[in-house]
Amino acid sequence: MTTDSIRKLFEEVRKGTLAPDEAVQRLRHLPFEDLDFAKVDHHRTLRTGMPEVIFSQGKTPSQVASIFARLAGRGPNVLATRASEKQFAAIKKKFRNAEYHPLARAVALRRDRKDYGRGVIAVVSAGTSDIPVAEEAVVTAEIMGNRVEHLYDVGVAGIHRLLAHRKTLDKARVVIVCAGMEGALPSVVGGMLGAPVIAVPTSVGYGAAFQGLAALLGMMNSCASNVSVVNIDNGFGAAYVASLINRL
Amino acid sequence: MTTDSIRKLFEEVRKGTLAPDEAVQRLRHLPFEDLDFAKVDHHRTLRTGMPEVIFSQGKTPSQVASIFARLAGRGPNVLATRASEKQFAAIKKKFRNAEYHPLARAVALRRDRKDYGRGVIAVVSAGTSDIPVAEEAVVTAEIMGNRVEHLYDVGVAGIHRLLAHRKTLDKARVVIVCAGMEGALPSVVGGMLGAPVIAVPTSVGYGAAFQGLAALLGMMNSCASNVSVVNIDNGFGAAYVASLINRL
Amino acid sequence: MTTDSIRKLFEEVRKGTLAPDEAVQRLRHLPFEDLDFAKVDHHRTLRTGMPEVIFSQGKTPSQVASIFARLAGRGPNVLATRASEKQFAAIKKKFRNAEYHPLARAVALRRDRKDYGRGVIAVVSAGTSDIPVAEEAVVTAEIMGNRVEHLYDVGVAGIHRLLAHRKTLDKARVVIVCAGMEGALPSVVGGMLGAPVIAVPTSVGYGAAFQGLAALLGMMNSCASNVSVVNIDNGFGAAYVASLINRL
Amino acid sequence: MTTDSIRKLFEEVRKGTLAPDEAVQRLRHLPFEDLDFAKVDHHRTLRTGMPEVIFSQGKTPSQVASIFARLAGRGPNVLATRASEKQFAAIKKKFRNAEYHPLARAVALRRDRKDYGRGVIAVVSAGTSDIPVAEEAVVTAEIMGNRVEHLYDVGVAGIHRLLAHRKTLDKARVVIVCAGMEGALPSVVGGMLGAPVIAVPTSVGYGAAFQGLAALLGMMNSCASNVSVVNIDNGFGAAYVASLINRL
Amino acid sequence: MTTDSIRKLFEEVRKGTLAPDEAVQRLRHLPFEDLDFAKVDHHRTLRTGMPEVIFSQGKTPSQVASIFARLAGRGPNVLATRASEKQFAAIKKKFRNAEYHPLARAVALRRDRKDYGRGVIAVVSAGTSDIPVAEEAVVTAEIMGNRVEHLYDVGVAGIHRLLAHRKTLDKARVVIVCAGMEGALPSVVGGMLGAPVIAVPTSVGYGAAFQGLAALLGMMNSCASNVSVVNIDNGFGAAYVASLINRL
Amino acid sequence: MTTDSIRKLFEEVRKGTLAPDEAVQRLRHLPFEDLDFAKVDHHRTLRTGMPEVIFSQGKTPSQVASIFARLAGRGPNVLATRASEKQFAAIKKKFRNAEYHPLARAVALRRDRKDYGRGVIAVVSAGTSDIPVAEEAVVTAEIMGNRVEHLYDVGVAGIHRLLAHRKTLDKARVVIVCAGMEGALPSVVGGMLGAPVIAVPTSVGYGAAFQGLAALLGMMNSCASNVSVVNIDNGFGAAYVASLINRL
Amino acid sequence: MTTDSIRKLFEEVRKGTLAPDEAVQRLRHLPFEDLDFAKVDHHRTLRTGMPEVIFSQGKTPSQVASIFARLAGRGPNVLATRASEKQFAAIKKKFRNAEYHPLARAVALRRDRKDYGRGVIAVVSAGTSDIPVAEEAVVTAEIMGNRVEHLYDVGVAGIHRLLAHRKTLDKARVVIVCAGMEGALPSVVGGMLGAPVIAVPTSVGYGAAFQGLAALLGMMNSCASNVSVVNIDNGFGAAYVASLINRL
Amino acid sequence: MTTDSIRKLFEEVRKGTLAPDEAVQRLRHLPFEDLDFAKVDHHRTLRTGMPEVIFSQGKTPSQVASIFARLAGRGPNVLATRASEKQFAAIKKKFRNAEYHPLARAVALRRDRKDYGRGVIAVVSAGTSDIPVAEEAVVTAEIMGNRVEHLYDVGVAGIHRLLAHRKTLDKARVVIVCAGMEGALPSVVGGMLGAPVIAVPTSVGYGAAFQGLAALLGMMNSCASNVSVVNIDNGFGAAYVASLINRL
Repeated sequence: MTTDSIRKLFEEVRKGTLAPDEAVQRLRHLPFEDLDFAKVDHHRTLRTGMPEVIFSQGKTPSQVASIFARLAGRGPNVLATRASEKQFAAIKKKFRNAEYHPLARAVALRRDRKDYGRGVIAVVSAGTSDIPVAEEAVVTAEIMGNRVEHLYDVGVAGIHRLLAHRKTLDKARVVIVCAGMEGALPSVVGGMLGAPVIAVPTSVGYGAAFQGLAALLGMMNSCASNVSVVNIDNGFGAAYVASLINRL
Repeated sequence: MTTDSIRKLFEEVRKGTLAPDEAVQRLRHLPFEDLDFAKVDHHRTLRTGMPEVIFSQGKTPSQVASIFARLAGRGPNVLATRASEKQFAAIKKKFRNAEYHPLARAVALRRDRKDYGRGVIAVVSAGTSDIPVAEEAVVTAEIMGNRVEHLYDVGVAGIHRLLAHRKTLDKARVVIVCAGMEGALPSVVGGMLGAPVIAVPTSVGYGAAFQGLAALLGMMNSCASNVSVVNIDNGFGAAYVASLINRL
Repeated sequence: MTTDSIRKLFEEVRKGTLAPDEAVQRLRHLPFEDLDFAKVDHHRTLRTGMPEVIFSQGKTPSQVASIFARLAGRGPNVLATRASEKQFAAIKKKFRNAEYHPLARAVALRRDRKDYGRGVIAVVSAGTSDIPVAEEAVVTAEIMGNRVEHLYDVGVAGIHRLLAHRKTLDKARVVIVCAGMEGALPSVVGGMLGAPVIAVPTSVGYGAAFQGLAALLGMMNSCASNVSVVNIDNGFGAAYVASLINRL
Repeated sequence: MTTDSIRKLFEEVRKGTLAPDEAVQRLRHLPFEDLDFAKVDHHRTLRTGMPEVIFSQGKTPSQVASIFARLAGRGPNVLATRASEKQFAAIKKKFRNAEYHPLARAVALRRDRKDYGRGVIAVVSAGTSDIPVAEEAVVTAEIMGNRVEHLYDVGVAGIHRLLAHRKTLDKARVVIVCAGMEGALPSVVGGMLGAPVIAVPTSVGYGAAFQGLAALLGMMNSCASNVSVVNIDNGFGAAYVASLINRL
Repeated sequence: MTTDSIRKLFEEVRKGTLAPDEAVQRLRHLPFEDLDFAKVDHHRTLRTGMPEVIFSQGKTPSQVASIFARLAGRGPNVLATRASEKQFAAIKKKFRNAEYHPLARAVALRRDRKDYGRGVIAVVSAGTSDIPVAEEAVVTAEIMGNRVEHLYDVGVAGIHRLLAHRKTLDKARVVIVCAGMEGALPSVVGGMLGAPVIAVPTSVGYGAAFQGLAALLGMMNSCASNVSVVNIDNGFGAAYVASLINRL
Repeated sequence: MTTDSIRKLFEEVRKGTLAPDEAVQRLRHLPFEDLDFAKVDHHRTLRTGMPEVIFSQGKTPSQVASIFARLAGRGPNVLATRASEKQFAAIKKKFRNAEYHPLARAVALRRDRKDYGRGVIAVVSAGTSDIPVAEEAVVTAEIMGNRVEHLYDVGVAGIHRLLAHRKTLDKARVVIVCAGMEGALPSVVGGMLGAPVIAVPTSVGYGAAFQGLAALLGMMNSCASNVSVVNIDNGFGAAYVASLINRL
Repeated sequence: MTTDSIRKLFEEVRKGTLAPDEAVQRLRHLPFEDLDFAKVDHHRTLRTGMPEVIFSQGKTPSQVASIFARLAGRGPNVLATRASEKQFAAIKKKFRNAEYHPLARAVALRRDRKDYGRGVIAVVSAGTSDIPVAEEAVVTAEIMGNRVEHLYDVGVAGIHRLLAHRKTLDKARVVIVCAGMEGALPSVVGGMLGAPVIAVPTSVGYGAAFQGLAALLGMMNSCASNVSVVNIDNGFGAAYVASLINRL
Repeated sequence: MTTDSIRKLFEEVRKGTLAPDEAVQRLRHLPFEDLDFAKVDHHRTLRTGMPEVIFSQGKTPSQVASIFARLAGRGPNVLATRASEKQFAAIKKKFRNAEYHPLARAVALRRDRKDYGRGVIAVVSAGTSDIPVAEEAVVTAEIMGNRVEHLYDVGVAGIHRLLAHRKTLDKARVVIVCAGMEGALPSVVGGMLGAPVIAVPTSVGYGAAFQGLAALLGMMNSCASNVSVVNIDNGFGAAYVASLINRL
């Protein structure tokens, strides 16, 4: 531990075996970053309730399970995103209470169930194919201690369905909107509300959807000023940002 | 004239100096395309009221004026799109009745004012910057003999303004929707209506709008099934397609 | 049901327990969207003969079958696009009359066989590889109550084959043109005809075809003014637009 | 005014000349959207302090000035973004108190100077060329009633400058980060903080910066989970989102 | 057969039952395209030795075999490109003399072995991974009646290997150069020679090669003026063009 | 001159002051490239009639004039492409016989007027805006000693105009086709002819034409096998390739 | 100065008024970054001779001049890249010894003329239009204390010119290669040499050069393994990297 | 062997049967490239310790093994990159001492274990998914005779981890940085150090990472001047460049 070497510096100074000026010089050449590391850890305690997270895709079940176990030692809540059933099975052996959310393709271990958010996060999705991304947002927001409402199948081509849910939307403190294809839903939702809207382009669509690029560009150019955007299919990131906002 | 050479064939056959079989062989080696040309001309007379059109951009005023004059000899109505005031001035000297539409940047000579369309074409535009494209559509549709209604400033981020105009939209036989930025308006309008919608992406926007590419991709991926799309800023093309449909 | 709450308003007014002005105020704060919903349903009845549609790709056979069953309760005709044989088998168990069109990869249940279109829709395809997209257009147009003619294998590099079919094309009220690779066919067909042309870029080709992007860009830039474009491989959308036009 | 037609319905019901059930039917066929419009206006009053905004680019000075005057009638604060000195001069004639921010290229009329934000918004910019975008964010956040701190010239290639400002950053409730070229700064800032970060890619750079595309893609792929992104050069949008968050 | 209807016209004229002028009019309304068709067939006989070609990819073995059989009825030489061993097996059952070229993934039936080309076509390929494309060019050029020389593994990063083959290159009447990755080889070869060079970008490479896009762009921008380019991996097309040139 | 140093080697060997083996070793370390240079020069004399060429864009008039003068010392014919009138004026002072082709934006000094081509090169252009590129091809082909025919305004949307010129096209030994927008013309021309077709995409168009990218991609994917492609707006390059072919 | 506050800590410990453990705690909460800052400064002294640099583009002459003056206080050598003659004039007033390199568009103040590089840096450029970028590299490398040789006009289409310079290239310790259009030169040079090659794509070219994108992609895919790449037109960056290598 | 024919020339000259001038002429027409080839071989001996390399992807195990064997005859060290376990098994049969590095997917035969590098090469990777690319760099650098240190899991969003390793980085003579997603790490590392940094974008990420394009663009636009870039996932190339630098 570097703290030891620093303490030694102070002790030598105290004993008079080291002059203060010389101590300053030596301090400069210590691997001071550990101080920084400490600070970060301290800082991290302010983030109570934030889940430790694994991006499971491309890892073997046993790799995921062992990372999961390590993270479970650091914090109460652990989330594995983009996880398959096989990966879940490997985790399940070690953590009986871990739960699999098949739509979200997520494994959640939620030991801290306190409510950290101050209001409701609404998650809106355009079509049934967008649900996996929306569910990833839902599961993430929940494990981060938020109340969440999910409005399914609310597309711009059926604007009446959206209007029918305005009451729910008006109550939300932050709104996440997942949409593929032309990605127009965040603009429409954004124009209806005064809350911040986190837009998630999804890779849903074909042809000129270009795996979510069309939706991404659409959302970047939203004519509603309360919209900001995260990466294609990044339900996790949207919920993370929304959770931070909901704690303010 | 090739028709002469064909007539000669028949005359030789009539006189008996040429056997029918031989005539068939010779016919095969005639430049038969002129026959085709004739047919096309015949066909063209079916298109009564269609304007002759010049794309004026990049041409000098005198070039535009002389092409305009030539076209004015072929049909009653002539339209010069993307025309500057200087180009108009040059045309005006030859055609007193030519009118300049500054918003649409179009010169129209309308000598045939008959109504060829069977219903109303609605032209919807999202923002004030889209008006030049929308006006090009309006002017084009009018010179092609349609009744036109233009709904300005009807964006997806203010969906109530769109709903306020539903009656007008419901009456339209074809709807043209011009939108830049995220290009979401055609989807919303398309979802509200049973009429065919012609979407025109505009180059309005900045940054990730990429000169209309974002709007174009958005419209190609519209979740409303009654939407088809023309080129960026192509108000003329949209009106041309809409006019053909409105004549059916 | 919100209609109840509205009726109560009127009844209170009738009884004199509520002043008209106050009633107007209260009405403003009702969740009025249901009214809108009703209107939409009413509107939908005007669209008789339109099929209910499922995009089957990425869904399990049982999911497709159950959505199919639900839609079959809403309208007489149901269409499942991008459907596999396995998905069809699952549907077939519930709907004996459902038919599979293997080339189009579509399942059609057609209980309303009335003719809603006023003319013929011609579907032109460039190469044999474009046939699945063209067949999707054919099946869609038919289930929407149109007479359809399909011209196969009519590419721009063999212009004589196209010319040989001009009679058929001239008779069509709307023309759908499916083409991959350079996507030039709609321009050529468009230049020959006075009818509206719906262009469908297909993902056919390799290398610089970029999964239909080359064809899409080509069609967007068509020098024929009667061409509008739908998404890559979107035979369904082209037929939907064409059907709306053919009903006018 | 449609409200009149609704009041008439109630009055007829009151007089007994119209049965409640019949009134409900008639109500359904009224152009109900105006009700919606009213609601939206009501809603708008909840957004006190939000500026009315003009995107000035591409408009003449007199156009900007007259739109500015109209908006100044609707709300106390008006903001004209992307405004030139000439446009400002035209506004200045009508509004003595309007101020020009040359770095931000913005005109601000701030008559409501109340503090609506609950904390500080930090605006971080990477290089001197990013300052116009950052200043647009600063001016926007200020006119929306926020305390703002701007950290200049804090790039990722000189990480120590960033670390030197950590205290300021730690105090911020929301952080806006503007960066062009590789757009890496939001990731670094995001990794240091627990606050939500709004990233603004700027069009600063040359060559493979592709007018902000490189920065945009970089930010979309940020490995820091608290980052969401707005359009290239959209300092206004970032500040708008940040202001909404800061009011929570 | 339309020729019949034309012959009848002539016969009626001969008999005097039809006036020449009237015959001309009737001729105009005949489906004249068949004439055109005939001409094209006639024209096709001028192209002696050109193979009939199938693009086999995405077709079943039996489909390929039956198309192959049909084409084998039209001309002496048949070529199936992008063919698998299974597809070859199906062809082999019908055509004992068909040969499979595994590197080129091509099936060739060559019954006309006459030499139509006037010189040698050189096919140069940069790396071993480019060989399939180069071999497709070799097989195509051979079946079209050309003498072909293939220079393997001649990359720009080992310019001496290229120089060592200059004699062979100098003798060639046309040169085909296949290269992936940066696609620089055609420029280097083009700068060394006075012959026309047909460049074929290949999809060889990874990362920023973008499936041949980098090579394609490189070749389009060749600083050697004697280079023209065909589609990515289009060895067939390059050989077709080269064969036409070699017959001149 | 290095030849001298080589001759010295031989002379030393002759005098017996140098052993052959040692001479071989020394030869290896000579700057042998000059040998190569000589060969190239020798080779260059085989290219009689090829013009020396300057790409004038971005150079000052005096720079262009002095390069022009230097090149005029090397060969009889000099061509300056992309040249302005001012650049021509500077050249004209030195070369009375230099001629300016304003449409082609080219300066040509043609002192060798011999006919090197064996047939006619046809240059086809789609629209009037493509003429500068087509004319650059015409001027280049002429100065390289070819007979040239230029067919103007022959677009795919008016296929009859193309058919009307088939005779001219059939006579051509090589055909250059210039087209912007969708770039479909080379496919149509290619399909009609047996001659090699050099396609030149032009930057003509707007919106989704993307400065010639749409045309370029279209031409790369041509369904006609006799088409190869040069860079956008590269009329010079097309003519250069065509001239080489026409000399064969 | 933070060093003071740290020294105070040590002094308090020495005096016995602060316990070592407590001192460690306080140290943790100091703005420790200054330590870091100090280290960086220390580090910076190791970089003797590195120029201070301004990217002048988009700045006013007086802005450039005042930044230049500030930087001239920090180090002996100052370089202003992308500088106009006007910007130079403003600098010249303050720094008599500043020199303008018009081809490189650079202003250099070189007060430390020591040789820091251990060998020669060769700068190779393909065409005359690439010279500005190459010259920027030359000027940068020189002001950083390197001996530089510049080989002009050495393109891949004239490989003999390149071979003629092999001796110069073989002597270089690092080679910078600037090339636009297809960007093939670094591959060819890289294949000839054993030295590291820094490739600079330039925006030279037109059409499918896409402002240097074609060259950039080409260089990224170089088949020579000793090539790494910097941004389009970034002659400065290439020379900076090369200088660091040349000092090793 | 061509050297023979050259020696014969000298011998004839010695015997007096050939005049020196005539010998020079004959020499010019010899296939002189072999001289060049010789030189290159000679040159190659200067590159002692460089491994012979196979890119294994897409080759069969037996192909890889036989190429491996051939290369093992040319030099002591052989490296097979992108190799599978099956390919390794085939090699192992022939070369007992060949070792498989599963993370790097590389087979290394290292018979020359001399240290050719003068310092340490540091390989930094951002996330666990980047390790395969980083390991390819490590294995390559080692087989080329360098001491290597690998810093894992050092991302920009946890800048303290990077700072903690500064000592290691400061000692490195060259640094390789592998990063996917936004690719920001090379800028941060570059800004901390005075050494040259070779950046390797990886294809790690999803959505708008576009298989490494986002990282590539980010790195090209690095605001740190000591960064140059190789192809996506090209760990081999980065190590090759770094090794050349480390030998200087």
